[in-house]
This record gives sequence, C-alpha cells and structure tokens, in this order.
Amino acid sequence: MTAQMSLDQATTKPHEQLANHLTSGMEAVNTLIRTRMASKHAPRIPEVTAHLVEAGGKRLRPMLTLAAAELCGYDGPFHVHLAATVEFIHTATLLHDDVVDESAQRRGRPTANLLWDNKSSVLVGDYLFSRSFQLMVETGNLRVLDILANASATIAEGEVLQLTAAQDLKTDESIYLQVVRGKTAALFSAATEVGGVIAGAPEDQVKALFDYGDSLGVAFQIVDDLLDYQGDSGSTGKNVGDDFRERKLTLPVIKAVAAADAEERAFWTRTIERGKQEEGDLEHAISLLHKHGTLEATRLDALAYAAHAKQAMAKLPDHPIRQMLSDIADYVVARIT
Amino acid sequence: MTAQMSLDQATTKPHEQLANHLTSGMEAVNTLIRTRMASKHAPRIPEVTAHLVEAGGKRLRPMLTLAAAELCGYDGPFHVHLAATVEFIHTATLLHDDVVDESAQRRGRPTANLLWDNKSSVLVGDYLFSRSFQLMVETGNLRVLDILANASATIAEGEVLQLTAAQDLKTDESIYLQVVRGKTAALFSAATEVGGVIAGAPEDQVKALFDYGDSLGVAFQIVDDLLDYQGDSGSTGKNVGDDFRERKLTLPVIKAVAAADAEERAFWTRTIERGKQEEGDLEHAISLLHKHGTLEATRLDALAYAAHAKQAMAKLPDHPIRQMLSDIADYVVARIT
Repeated sequence: MTAQMSLDQATTKPHEQLANHLTSGMEAVNTLIRTRMASKHAPRIPEVTAHLVEAGGKRLRPMLTLAAAELCGYDGPFHVHLAATVEFIHTATLLHDDVVDESAQRRGRPTANLLWDNKSSVLVGDYLFSRSFQLMVETGNLRVLDILANASATIAEGEVLQLTAAQDLKTDESIYLQVVRGKTAALFSAATEVGGVIAGAPEDQVKALFDYGDSLGVAFQIVDDLLDYQGDSGSTGKNVGDDFRERKLTLPVIKAVAAADAEERAFWTRTIERGKQEEGDLEHAISLLHKHGTLEATRLDALAYAAHAKQAMAKLPDHPIRQMLSDIADYVVARIT
Repeated sequence: MTAQMSLDQATTKPHEQLANHLTSGMEAVNTLIRTRMASKHAPRIPEVTAHLVEAGGKRLRPMLTLAAAELCGYDGPFHVHLAATVEFIHTATLLHDDVVDESAQRRGRPTANLLWDNKSSVLVGDYLFSRSFQLMVETGNLRVLDILANASATIAEGEVLQLTAAQDLKTDESIYLQVVRGKTAALFSAATEVGGVIAGAPEDQVKALFDYGDSLGVAFQIVDDLLDYQGDSGSTGKNVGDDFRERKLTLPVIKAVAAADAEERAFWTRTIERGKQEEGDLEHAISLLHKHGTLEATRLDALAYAAHAKQAMAKLPDHPIRQMLSDIADYVVARIT
C-alpha cells in the first residue's frame, strides 16, 4: 500500500473498495444469479445453490469481470451475464470439490454434501455449469465462449491431475502450476480476460488482463499453500499441517523433495506417498522446509507473481479501478510480507 | 417395418443399417473423440473415458446428429464436432449418473466409480462436459450453442427433479415427462436438431428434427419403464420389478396412483414413499397395474410417441436416411408390439 492513500482507503480493504465502487453492477449480478438459480419443479436446486451463493463469500471473481469491463470502457449489459457466469462456474466447482474431498465444512458452515447428500451436490453442480453456459451464450460473443470453454477444461483437467499427482513425489513445479491454474488461476484469468473482450479492448490490454488474473490467482494459491505450514489458524481458518496430514504435495514440499538427500527422500516417500505418518513427522517436515529454505523460496515466488500482476496493470488505462486491482494484488500477499 | 424391405434390411436392425450408411462419418467422430479425450499429464482422464466410450454402446446419439445433417444436405465438417459433442455429454452424464445411483454395473461391466472411485467419475465427467463445450464452440454457430446449452440445463434439471420427485406420490405425468426429457429425450432432440441447424435447413425441417428426437427419446424411456414390469430379464438386462424395489415412480405406477382408491393409495404410500416393502408386494403392485389397465395405457403412450416421431419424418426430404430414422422409431417400440 502507498503512503498517499486516503483515510478511507487505509481502513477499507482493497476488495471492499472495489465492491463499493461496483455496488450497482454487483446488485445486477446478484439479481441475475437469483433469477437463474430458480427451478420451477426442482426446489432442491435453489436451496443448495443459495446455501453456497449466499454464504457471504467475497465474490471476488464476478467483481474482477465487472472491473475489467469498466476499466476498458464497456457500457453494454453483458458484463453482468459474464460475472454471473463466472460465479456459477465457481459455485459448481465448489459443490463438486466438496464431494471429491469429502469435506464437511466450507466458510465455517456445513457443506452441501453434508446437509443434503453427494447426489444433490453432483447434480446441482451440473445444473449450475449448464446455467453458466446458457448465460455466456446469451452474450453472443464467440471469443468469450472460447475463453470460458478453455478455462472450464483447464479447471477440470487440473482437478483430475491433483487427484493423481498430489501424492506422487515425481510431481514437479510445472505440474504444481498446472494444478494451481486448474484450482484457482484459470477462473481468475478468464474472469478478467472476458471483461476486456466484451468491452472490445485492444489486444495488448486483453493480454494484460489475462496476465493479471493468472498471476493473481497463482499468487493467491501459493500464499494459501505457504500459510498451511506457517500461518496461525485464526487468520487462515486452517490448521498448520493440514496439507501435510492430507498428503498434499504443495510448493514448499516440492522444493524440499527436489533438494532432498536419500534419507530425506525416504521420509517424504513414507509420509506423503505411502501416508504412513507418525508422531513428530509434521515437526520434522517443517524442519526440512527450513533446512532447504523452501518456505522463503515459496514466499518469494508468491511475491513475484503478485508483482507480475501489478506490472500487467501498467498496460491498462488510467482509471480508479486500475489502482484498486493493483492494491488487491498487494493485499493477496500482505499476509506473508 | 414394411413388406417392401430388402433381405438385407430384414436381417439388419435399423440402427445397424444407419451405422453402415454412416461408416466414414462415424470413423471421423471416433477419431475426434479419441483425440479430445487425451490429457498430457492426467492419464486418469483417457483411462476412465475409454472404459465407457469403448464399451461397445450403439452410439445412437452421435449417429442421429450425422444422420440429421446428411438428411438436410450438409457437406461441411462440423457435424462431426457436434456428434462428438453429443457423445461426450452423454458419457459425462453416465459417469455422474453412476455416482448418483451408486451403480456397480453398466452394459454388463463394472462402472467407473467401482473400478476407480467416485472422485474420478465426478471430475472426469466435468472434464468431458468442458471438452464437449470446446468442441461445439469450434463450430462458431451460436444457435447450435444455444440449443446445446438449453439441452444441458434440461438434462441437469431433470436429474435433480428425479432425485426429489421419484418417490413422491404427487409426481404426475407432466413431471414424469420432464424427468424423461432430462434423462433421455433432451439429448436425442438436441442431437437431431443441431444436425439440421448446422446444415442450414429450413425452420420447418429443424422443428421436425427436434420433434423426431424428442418423441423417439420419450418413447425409448417409456418402453424401458414398461419392460421393467413386464419384460424378461434376458432381453432387457434388468430384472422385473427393479424400479419398484428402487421405489421409482414410473409411468405405469403414476397412472395407477391416479386411479387408486384409499386402500391402494395406502399401499403405494407404504411401498414407494416410505419404502417399507414386504414379500408379495411386487406381485400386488403388478396386479394393481393390471386392474387399472395402466400397463396397456403406458404401452399406447409409447406407441403414440413412436408414431409422432415417424410423422415428423414426413416433413423432411426424401432420402434413404429418412426411412432408416423412421424404422428406428418402429424398432424402439418393437419390444412392446
């Protein structure tokens, strides 16, 4: 954050500033979401959807779409459709993720698969995917459809990859990045890119919007993975070591495996690949991360992605939203700086 | 079938005749499917997909798309994309259905959720949906996208509806039809309709192709539901009474519930809504279907839908494929005539 910021900015988080700026657009998005999640004969659909959509998430993804469109001077109606599309895709992936991960809690509330059942989560997720698809078709913009179709494939492929790669010590940083793009960055970058495309922005701006969303999403996920080893549960909502206990190969561990000697490699094989964990293993894992400096290296990676997101903003028009997006990139890494 | 048919036609089933006619087109479809189910880093995706796609199904849906396009004189490349799209959507719904129904067998083989796990079935299904979406976007035809987006929503809504309506005695014939359209007819009608649209056929022909696919799909599902109460397991692959034991309200039962006196209603409430079934209940259920003539009424409904499918063909150009499609409508109801 800069020293020039106003008092208002100093007390308001960057995503809240953006939300304040986009109030009327986001009201239109919320109205459209409520309209399109309705189902005449299958009340289970709006019940399950509302449980997630109205759980009080930040709605960062649809805001990014509205912000990108406004930043590029769009004055048509379809950025609202695209923002709702992005939120529906996000909600659908959350429903399916919670089934796949057998999760019981999300955002401090019981998951839909727990409150209803796995069947409802799978099928309502499918319904929201198809509704998102209808919404984007309504824009009549084939390039937007192409971007969102490709993002959907990246998301799904990343999820399958995570299933098979997460516990495989051969997983390297490039596969990790592919998983991260699937989990997080592909929808961020599609959200910002389609905002520019629907506005008819020049190619270099569209590319910059993609880069911003991609780098922001990667930074976001790396921070999440780093805090799993050094955060406090109060600020993250996760307990330190959850990823280790769930045998997830995240960036700090991938870097440590790459630097491991034979004995350390045997430790990672036992605890991650074979899942045979004992008392004291988490502490030993963390000591190995420190020994090889991988927490610090991971932190620097996150900062580099956040910096890249901010650099991308330089190619976009001078506009209050540009500063807000830049501040969001700082905010994402603020917990590790 | 007609008396004029050739010896070849008499010994070859109608869908096999169509397959013979469409050999080169279907080879192109199969090649495209194999190309698009590949994944560089996630081998689980082609493994799971191949298990279903190469299980030896009839591929009726993609054949309907190729047939409709050829019938309307199409000579471009995109009917192949659309046929592969339709098969991917079908495969994705099978993967998710088997998770939702907790099925162990499909087409006489173990299901993907049994061979791998529910996670893989959910995520690979999502991947195939997104791949189908990419394929259809490549056609660059917004009307085709609109039709397939709407079909996807009808499919997903029908599946959720079945989840909540199947055991509810308030389910009437109109809700049953909505479920049937979701389970079967929506993809049949989209398959034929997009074939006409991509060919640039006149509106009355596009409408007739939709009607054909819709009526064929509804007839197909009603026959399936009827045979569950009066088929022999050798020809259907199902045991008589499976739907009753699974407490599914299908058309013969819905008609019997509508005609039930108080005592009969109590029987249906106990066996279907509350699921408290005893020795002899299936036999009693079948006797009630006979008492109210609902098996015969259901049979007549199926025949009427098949007849409607054939009538729709009258609006299409004179072409060998037209007769084959008409024969397929006869064939679907041949098991109950």
